Amino acid sequence: MAKYSIGVDLGGTNFRAAAVFQDGSLIDKVNGTTSVAAGREAIINDIVDAVVFLRDRRSTDELAGIGIALPGFIVMETGTIMESPNIPPFDNFAARDAFQQRLNSPVILENDANAAAIGEKWIGAGRDVNDLVLLTLGTGIGGGIICGGRVLHGFTGMAGELGHVTVDLYGNPCGCGNSGCLEKHASATAISTMARHLSLGDNLTSKDVYDLAIGGNPVALRVFESMGRSLGIALATYVQVFNFPLYLLSGGPLAAWDLFTPAMFAEIGRRSSTYRLTKTRIEKALLGSDAGLFGAAYLPFQAAEGA
Amino acid sequence: MAKYSIGVDLGGTNFRAAAVFQDGSLIDKVNGTTSVAAGREAIINDIVDAVVFLRDRRSTDELAGIGIALPGFIVMETGTIMESPNIPPFDNFAARDAFQQRLNSPVILENDANAAAIGEKWIGAGRDVNDLVLLTLGTGIGGGIICGGRVLHGFTGMAGELGHVTVDLYGNPCGCGNSGCLEKHASATAISTMARHLSLGDNLTSKDVYDLAIGGNPVALRVFESMGRSLGIALATYVQVFNFPLYLLSGGPLAAWDLFTPAMFAEIGRRSSTYRLTKTRIEKALLGSDAGLFGAAYLPFQAAEGA
Repeated sequence: MAKYSIGVDLGGTNFRAAAVFQDGSLIDKVNGTTSVAAGREAIINDIVDAVVFLRDRRSTDELAGIGIALPGFIVMETGTIMESPNIPPFDNFAARDAFQQRLNSPVILENDANAAAIGEKWIGAGRDVNDLVLLTLGTGIGGGIICGGRVLHGFTGMAGELGHVTVDLYGNPCGCGNSGCLEKHASATAISTMARHLSLGDNLTSKDVYDLAIGGNPVALRVFESMGRSLGIALATYVQVFNFPLYLLSGGPLAAWDLFTPAMFAEIGRRSSTYRLTKTRIEKALLGSDAGLFGAAYLPFQAAEGA
Repeated sequence: MAKYSIGVDLGGTNFRAAAVFQDGSLIDKVNGTTSVAAGREAIINDIVDAVVFLRDRRSTDELAGIGIALPGFIVMETGTIMESPNIPPFDNFAARDAFQQRLNSPVILENDANAAAIGEKWIGAGRDVNDLVLLTLGTGIGGGIICGGRVLHGFTGMAGELGHVTVDLYGNPCGCGNSGCLEKHASATAISTMARHLSLGDNLTSKDVYDLAIGGNPVALRVFESMGRSLGIALATYVQVFNFPLYLLSGGPLAAWDLFTPAMFAEIGRRSSTYRLTKTRIEKALLGSDAGLFGAAYLPFQAAEGA
């Protein structure tokens, strides 16, 4: 009887669920659409159906539990979602107990960026370390901190808001109330916005800007230089604060690694004495969009270890 | 037979050593001068004499061990001091083994700001939490991070360099190689420097600037406003990163708490959504200059717990 767990990565548009063995090998995987418009019960029904489908196929094995990664702030002790901007029906919702009741199995909730970080630590780029920071570059910038092999939650579950730290005192205004947040200067959205402001085009994705830059467009190249510099400023702070061995980046803009990292590393080197004095690694994450799914699946195994 | 430990706070000018019971109560304390000019052996001899003096007076009790707090980077695994700017004879020195050999008791070294943070956690302002950040405002700004009740060291012992993070991209140049480090904008030295640049006087201490401000001098008041704003920018980042329940400030400039904290809290509120959404406490440390001494004394007890 093998031990397995089920991970769910629940996004604002789609969800995925996977059954995974304790060594990280994938057993089965299902995909679905998140029925945000249809409301809370519809979303829950779809997730429950997917989990039950996966579980029924392993009826001879032992289920360690179910991990669910989703965007938003989660009060870990109670398993309540305080606020989930991408899944509004789950705002102020005791989701853990609701899922546990329907599934009759232990459920662990985790913020999606935190889940991605623990996934990378389990079977990704962070396999060989116990401490790492992950930045996910997308529409916004999410952050996950793994400290001593575990997600750092802070006292209300809000630790790791690494996209909402100031990199420029007088920088772009942010929806969080701050000015100059990293996310406003280095996310995929920021790349598109900079391109628009520089008259490269009105509806360019960060991929479009990348294609222009690869084609030699000097303005597009400057966009990635600016984005890299902002990332470097924030990473320098994180290196000074944590002195962790590994900092990972993930997300679409990683395709432009060669374009933005020269400015990024120059800024880190200038601003962080710890970076200059230690063999700190700043690298690409390995699991891509599967990191949160695997991280979610890892959580029941980690809870069972009880460490 | 009561259990006690001996803590040593070794500074560049003076040292103190204290015997302390496991409940934090002080037994005996001795002070001395750090013989930096006389060299390594002279310093060691003075510390050993002080510890032996304290130990001989408790010959019927059980010594848990000896903790030594000192400025500089310490490789925790080997007990080697990489660099100690204020005690140059200790640069590149395997101090832990040297002290252990002379004292025939287990010795634990710790960076002084880290020791102050763990001291505050043990019997100071952080007694009721397991996670806190301490900023020590002095000639420079030191930092200590307590995570899960223990000092966060990072992989080479350099975590918590909280005075050397960027608060202003184009701010004052810093000896660490960066520009705009917190320490260059909010330490006691920064207060004196700002006062000089604003023609308040050439050799004013931060205490002098405080006295001018209390007397109503508008320029001196602006110095503390600027210092508070810089502190707030850095603290906002730390609150976003850690979501810890408590952030402590210590050092001479705390006398000016009422002068610099309005700007500090305004900046934190503006820049940290986590601060606005949680009951995060930002407070004065309680142990003053004794924090490092008590923190050093606590380390052998913590090691004995083995947690």
